[in-house]
Amino acid sequence: MKKILFATTALVVTAGAAAADITLSGSANMGVKYQEGRAAGETFLYNELDFGINASSTTDSGIEFGASIDLDASMTDDTATQDPGSFDPEVYISSGGLTLTVGTVDPATDPFGIGDIGFDGIGIDDVGEKIGGTGVKGNANVIVEYTMGDYSFAASADGNSGDDWAIAFMGSFSGLDFGIGYNEAAVLGTTVDATWLDLSYGFGDVTVGAFYLHADAAGGGEADNYGFEAAYTAGDLTVNFAYSYDDSTDADAYGVGASYNLGSGLAVAGGVGDVDGTTVADFGVTMSF
Amino acid sequence: MKKILFATTALVVTAGAAAADITLSGSANMGVKYQEGRAAGETFLYNELDFGINASSTTDSGIEFGASIDLDASMTDDTATQDPGSFDPEVYISSGGLTLTVGTVDPATDPFGIGDIGFDGIGIDDVGEKIGGTGVKGNANVIVEYTMGDYSFAASADGNSGDDWAIAFMGSFSGLDFGIGYNEAAVLGTTVDATWLDLSYGFGDVTVGAFYLHADAAGGGEADNYGFEAAYTAGDLTVNFAYSYDDSTDADAYGVGASYNLGSGLAVAGGVGDVDGTTVADFGVTMSF
Amino acid sequence: MKKILFATTALVVTAGAAAADITLSGSANMGVKYQEGRAAGETFLYNELDFGINASSTTDSGIEFGASIDLDASMTDDTATQDPGSFDPEVYISSGGLTLTVGTVDPATDPFGIGDIGFDGIGIDDVGEKIGGTGVKGNANVIVEYTMGDYSFAASADGNSGDDWAIAFMGSFSGLDFGIGYNEAAVLGTTVDATWLDLSYGFGDVTVGAFYLHADAAGGGEADNYGFEAAYTAGDLTVNFAYSYDDSTDADAYGVGASYNLGSGLAVAGGVGDVDGTTVADFGVTMSF
Repeated sequence: MKKILFATTALVVTAGAAAADITLSGSANMGVKYQEGRAAGETFLYNELDFGINASSTTDSGIEFGASIDLDASMTDDTATQDPGSFDPEVYISSGGLTLTVGTVDPATDPFGIGDIGFDGIGIDDVGEKIGGTGVKGNANVIVEYTMGDYSFAASADGNSGDDWAIAFMGSFSGLDFGIGYNEAAVLGTTVDATWLDLSYGFGDVTVGAFYLHADAAGGGEADNYGFEAAYTAGDLTVNFAYSYDDSTDADAYGVGASYNLGSGLAVAGGVGDVDGTTVADFGVTMSF
Repeated sequence: MKKILFATTALVVTAGAAAADITLSGSANMGVKYQEGRAAGETFLYNELDFGINASSTTDSGIEFGASIDLDASMTDDTATQDPGSFDPEVYISSGGLTLTVGTVDPATDPFGIGDIGFDGIGIDDVGEKIGGTGVKGNANVIVEYTMGDYSFAASADGNSGDDWAIAFMGSFSGLDFGIGYNEAAVLGTTVDATWLDLSYGFGDVTVGAFYLHADAAGGGEADNYGFEAAYTAGDLTVNFAYSYDDSTDADAYGVGASYNLGSGLAVAGGVGDVDGTTVADFGVTMSF
Repeated sequence: MKKILFATTALVVTAGAAAADITLSGSANMGVKYQEGRAAGETFLYNELDFGINASSTTDSGIEFGASIDLDASMTDDTATQDPGSFDPEVYISSGGLTLTVGTVDPATDPFGIGDIGFDGIGIDDVGEKIGGTGVKGNANVIVEYTMGDYSFAASADGNSGDDWAIAFMGSFSGLDFGIGYNEAAVLGTTVDATWLDLSYGFGDVTVGAFYLHADAAGGGEADNYGFEAAYTAGDLTVNFAYSYDDSTDADAYGVGASYNLGSGLAVAGGVGDVDGTTVADFGVTMSF
């Protein structure tokens, strides 16, 4: 099959376009993790690399468009061979604050929840953000986002045959960031409806945040999960705390962590916590390029 | 195994070579496709990303050489997880119009045929370019090309144990592009000999093209396939039409499409057609970076 | 799971860091290989591409850090489809000559041995560097290296549950490079202790090198392997010779090769040899970008 005639033509016409840009981005971490009672060894090495290739351009009329793939890899435990993951491709087009993205996108409710503790994360946030350990945000392969000043609206869907969909509204005023969202996800052998509330507030060197999740399974069963976090920054040092609770299993998790910013994208970070009675901890460095 | 001694030496010597260049290239599309009677849903989302890493250099004596890999991904239907494809690596060396390429190359007869209709393609060209839906161009892992002015010759082979091979001669004069080629391919449970003729002619805003394929199976059975296309460009708008016919199954396909060039590499395109009685259509955007 | 709060903060703070750098590197080769009596054909095509994405940065206080992945592909015989390999991710941090790397790293004894013969290598070095065809250097996912002037020390381990580990000391004075190392590797159904000696010396246009390997299997069985190599450079031409011996199987291999540097990273190279009675040869080009 030859390439399409006019698509090729379009290529030739625009080959000299000055606006087009393909760049590399990257972040990485490495360190040691600890998990009490872990069968394959309580203490183990971990690293993670997240490179990306990002293409973007803008037409003379102001339409922005682009595409990106992820080149990610991570090592757990002592596994020396590390396979490439999915490229997670995304293609987007944007104009006047309205953006349409098709690909392996995050659902509209993906931003809701709290941050984790540690250099890579010890799972303090996961307990409350999931129902019995299963995420209820669902999948998406198309998302529409509209941004107007400090407010934004997003709606996502899992393409055609999938039933997952999500909507979210987010905004900020006077230092307060808020978000409210709703999604349906085909998980746990049924359809789960999830309502999300998310708040964060920064005053001086302190940032606090909280979320609330009401999950409602189609076959019966409800849960009111929640979590909160606080971070205090003094110069290059940030100390943070997080707590989350899963109503469906009466499980909770809490942890405390610290990060020291060495500059130029390098930080030393670590955390220790308790996930439903199991002690977990990590310590390592994070890098952004 | 240590690296080879003098290869490493060569590396050191040439580390400061100003001619070497490694660049990223990319194109992408996204849109909606329609196929009448499709079991998994008639209408479905599609996107495709084709990134490439291309290295090239030139010696002081004028020998060009390089290597490239593809980083491609695509989404069909509502499948959110998209796996990386093959890297399709190629290594080439070129001097005085003669180029040798080793890798996952296209066979010498690959350029023959017509263009497709739509933002990504609805398969109008495939019907006539294949025999009963199976391509007969074969595979190749080495190709030699020689270019002299407006004329070029190419010969490809499927390495050692493979029997596939192809030759092609192409040229252009007074606005007429022509190509003639021959290949053998081990497909359809036998060896198929394929003879290709390809013509295209541009006059003013109109381009027309046609191909003819004579396929001859070793175990008996011949087919005389053909197809033609026409495109008309008015400013940023291009309208095109394509038709192809498969003699082996008495199937044909035709379609009409349009593309509007938004500039900077962005175009909106779509098409609708009939592939052997089935209505197919697509609509979306194409991007080149 | 949202990204970690302070890691994200650190990212924002350092987004403008001028020191961060993400680059592409690459090398490639292509050619023909010969192996006497090979079932799938004695002569076959080969190519190999080794691209890399390398991110690095330096803090104001002089701490260097970075991460890298490999994008490699190769073709053997007539196989047109070439799958991507592992990304082999590595993350490192370095300060004052001390470097810690976590990922798919080579063990500390990896540098020991001799170079191979040919454009890609015909396996002359492998015979003596392995025990009955099996490598005894083991695996590693963490390595610490310390460099002080012309001397360096390295220690590697296979993470947590793996038993493989290695140490090495290397240095150079008056044109003589030497190395001594020791490693344990879980191979050949037992634990093998390997002691390595490595020497190379350059005088004028001639470089000579040799290695000695004493391997000691836990269940009994010892071997004293060795090998040596010599290279002579006259302008752009380098001729080399290599020999290695495997005491465990009384096998040896020897070969002679040549490389001609065409400049700008391009070289023509080839070699012929005998691996335990089997004639092997290769001829092709090598490229570095």
